[in-house]
Amino acid sequence: MKAKITITLKNGVLDPQGAAIENALASLGFEGADSVRQGKVIEMKLSETDEIAARAKAEEMCKKLLANPVMENYAIEILA
Amino acid sequence: MKAKITITLKNGVLDPQGAAIENALASLGFEGADSVRQGKVIEMKLSETDEIAARAKAEEMCKKLLANPVMENYAIEILA
Repeated sequence: MKAKITITLKNGVLDPQGAAIENALASLGFEGADSVRQGKVIEMKLSETDEIAARAKAEEMCKKLLANPVMENYAIEILA
Repeated sequence: MKAKITITLKNGVLDPQGAAIENALASLGFEGADSVRQGKVIEMKLSETDEIAARAKAEEMCKKLLANPVMENYAIEILA
């Protein structure tokens, strides 16, 4: 199964990359873009054929390696 | 409206970050994770109140700044 894991900074955590994008957009003349935040997306194929098992594995990967739970939230999507 | 822009490397473009994650997962004992690719997700608030206008603006931002169309694909989701 394919897993898509989206990792975003928690609210209140400073996001310098997001701020840089916001400034760059403004300097290119894009007005009205606000609260820009940048995160990561990680896609992978998992050998599990069962959605529940695949989700459990992705969750464990997030906890052990992919996300920093102090600063980051993660969301897991399992695709067929 | 909120826009969520997902930027991923095109197929065939080398992804050293994805490869590093794949190796790290294997060395932590996670088996069966394959074809790991890392991308970016950018979230922002747009002042547009119309979905079509918001999508057009996000598309232009991708073309002019956010994505490198030679190496990257982008997908835009507009959320209420």
